[in-house]
Amino acid sequence: MSDGLTVPFALAAGLSGAVASSSIVVIAGIAEIAAGSIAMGLGGYLAGKTEQDHYASELKREYDEVERVPEVEKQEVKEFFEHIGLSEEVQIRATEEISQDKKRWVDFMMRYELGLEEPDPKRAGKSAVNIGLSYIAGGIIPLSPYFFISDSAEGLKVSIIVTLICLFAFGYFKSRMTGVNAWKGALKVTFIGAIAAAAAFGVAKIFTH
Amino acid sequence: MSDGLTVPFALAAGLSGAVASSSIVVIAGIAEIAAGSIAMGLGGYLAGKTEQDHYASELKREYDEVERVPEVEKQEVKEFFEHIGLSEEVQIRATEEISQDKKRWVDFMMRYELGLEEPDPKRAGKSAVNIGLSYIAGGIIPLSPYFFISDSAEGLKVSIIVTLICLFAFGYFKSRMTGVNAWKGALKVTFIGAIAAAAAFGVAKIFTH
Repeated sequence: MSDGLTVPFALAAGLSGAVASSSIVVIAGIAEIAAGSIAMGLGGYLAGKTEQDHYASELKREYDEVERVPEVEKQEVKEFFEHIGLSEEVQIRATEEISQDKKRWVDFMMRYELGLEEPDPKRAGKSAVNIGLSYIAGGIIPLSPYFFISDSAEGLKVSIIVTLICLFAFGYFKSRMTGVNAWKGALKVTFIGAIAAAAAFGVAKIFTH
Repeated sequence: MSDGLTVPFALAAGLSGAVASSSIVVIAGIAEIAAGSIAMGLGGYLAGKTEQDHYASELKREYDEVERVPEVEKQEVKEFFEHIGLSEEVQIRATEEISQDKKRWVDFMMRYELGLEEPDPKRAGKSAVNIGLSYIAGGIIPLSPYFFISDSAEGLKVSIIVTLICLFAFGYFKSRMTGVNAWKGALKVTFIGAIAAAAAFGVAKIFTH
């Protein structure tokens, strides 16, 4: 959502510096929202699918190895316990206990040797829809002033005010939810949006002349 | 880089359906590249900084808790060993051994209770520069035909060919590097780009009429 606010906002700002009519800004903004929401949403979905495939193939490989080369795999479990600082004796006993149950053994290897957690099969789809819709919702905000104001420079002024307020509010609540300093988080998000818009505006100005 | 190829490509495609002159397409594309590279690069940098702050504050909290409520923390270590399937006796011995050394104990809690790895302080900066530059490099490819071809519809044809080839090649090599099926990966990336461009084109057409 923060990308959805930022990138269409900055693109519209850039174009406002280059063309006088809001209609071009609106069309470009809508094209960007369509492109961005699909690239991020669909991209996220397919990345999630790839992660699932990867997990499944690694799981198969671990079950295979536990069958074929159990001593190598036991050594790897033992090394984990050595690495966290247990004594030789406890390393050996813990390894023996884990390797008594094949499922437990493989789960342990997946989680702590490979650092892989089982992906939730429904998550890929859900997160794709979330990302796509957030991008659209975010993108409509900076664009909306241009719908009503035909002069792009005037539209930009309203868009800057509306978008910076939304970025600040979004940054504030997101930071609160993730437990970091909310004011600092709000300033960061607003700062990124302002810099991106200023850069887009500047670059578009240069290429127009 | 894949986003850098996809989004400016799709935006340019969308605008080509709406305006006849390549110059508007180029200006919008450059504004988008400036906006996207800063939003993603700077966004990535600040996210990395937040991660470092988060790690540091959690580390402090764990050292604190180990000092103040060692029995509670020992219980948490024991629960980890219970969870992976060790016997009561080995759980107790392993917990005793880990909690003998404060640094080892806290490191263990950070890594396996909270699932946090110490972020590399240089990584945030490096990855920001990488992301930003990749986005710019990716974005120039779909835009370059419009520099030389003044009719946007003609520019679009060349842009489609060039970009889809690059997306395919990029998807292929990226998938090979991450060890998943390279042809499948190449098709996925190309597919996302094509869909995003088609959607942007369609949406821009609708809003033009």
